[in-house]
Amino acid sequence: MIKLYDHLASGNGYKVRLLLSRLAIPFERIELDINAGETRTAEFLARNPSGRIPLVELDDGAYLAESGAILFYFAQNTAFLPDDPLARAEMLQWMFFEQYEHEPNIAVARHWLAHGAISTEQQQQLADKQARGVAALTRMEGHLGGRQWFVGGHCSIADIALYAYTHVAAEGGFELAPFRHVNAWLERMAGEPGHIPITQA
Amino acid sequence: MIKLYDHLASGNGYKVRLLLSRLAIPFERIELDINAGETRTAEFLARNPSGRIPLVELDDGAYLAESGAILFYFAQNTAFLPDDPLARAEMLQWMFFEQYEHEPNIAVARHWLAHGAISTEQQQQLADKQARGVAALTRMEGHLGGRQWFVGGHCSIADIALYAYTHVAAEGGFELAPFRHVNAWLERMAGEPGHIPITQA
Repeated sequence: MIKLYDHLASGNGYKVRLLLSRLAIPFERIELDINAGETRTAEFLARNPSGRIPLVELDDGAYLAESGAILFYFAQNTAFLPDDPLARAEMLQWMFFEQYEHEPNIAVARHWLAHGAISTEQQQQLADKQARGVAALTRMEGHLGGRQWFVGGHCSIADIALYAYTHVAAEGGFELAPFRHVNAWLERMAGEPGHIPITQA
Repeated sequence: MIKLYDHLASGNGYKVRLLLSRLAIPFERIELDINAGETRTAEFLARNPSGRIPLVELDDGAYLAESGAILFYFAQNTAFLPDDPLARAEMLQWMFFEQYEHEPNIAVARHWLAHGAISTEQQQQLADKQARGVAALTRMEGHLGGRQWFVGGHCSIADIALYAYTHVAAEGGFELAPFRHVNAWLERMAGEPGHIPITQA
């Protein structure tokens, strides 16, 4: 069975859990305490030299890291990956946007505020993270006006990737109420078959 | 003809130029001065609301942003995109690594040191950027021991993506000499047919 090295509070881990649940692919979840250094042990670094979760161990023993790459792997030959070459690239555009403009601001602000003690240096960077996070949400809001999903007529892994940290953005100090298209899309996502909450191990 | 909105010093823009050159796909390059705000005008934001280059305008008028997504678009049905589902995901793993662990440290340090005046706040963050950049280079060095290319037996867009800022890392204050597998790979890349330097418009 597929093994998922994970941390329950991680939105990056949740992306993988959510896709596997929606695809009804069984997996064994191995919880690691990232705050206690469990992803920095020699044993874990031998599995993933980047020292990060999520990490997937496939049935043949191969490892795959990076949430976006793991989503792509499991989405192949399913409706979560569009067939059209341009739609496929647009989906990746949103997934790279998520990792470059969204996650480093919204997820990091959430981690500082909700899952640890914030340092003086982090406190100084918080206003910048929050301004950049609002810019990412504004970009999503503009795109979702008149659309059901980020790319094409189906939920794709771009939606899964963006859902993970957007739906818990309030934990990072972000006010979601003004983003009505984003809110409608969050509700649509939560109503899809196989949906699970981030708190479900 | 394909239009590429670009900035010559940008490694992200160079990734696209380099792949198009290696694939012998003709394109018109439109140079924008990112330091003078030319990607933040109303005209450009209508093309790409993220206000960033590289941006590609396809023959049918569609726009595509994010260097990794643009590389993927043009690599489809070429040898730069592996056929194997796991190899394809491993390639994306390295491309997400590049945008999350490599570019925000190596490219940003280079931008601060070589292409503008560094602020006091940036000066304070520089040591952290350089430590993280060295960690990314060390990760690449470990992977390239005994390998010719990042994934499989061919140059893929993972190599193109990682080459762009690695080969100019010295401009960001990084010492490449200790990374001998990385250096051998940089030479291999520069010897490939259709290769162009970052300075070639």
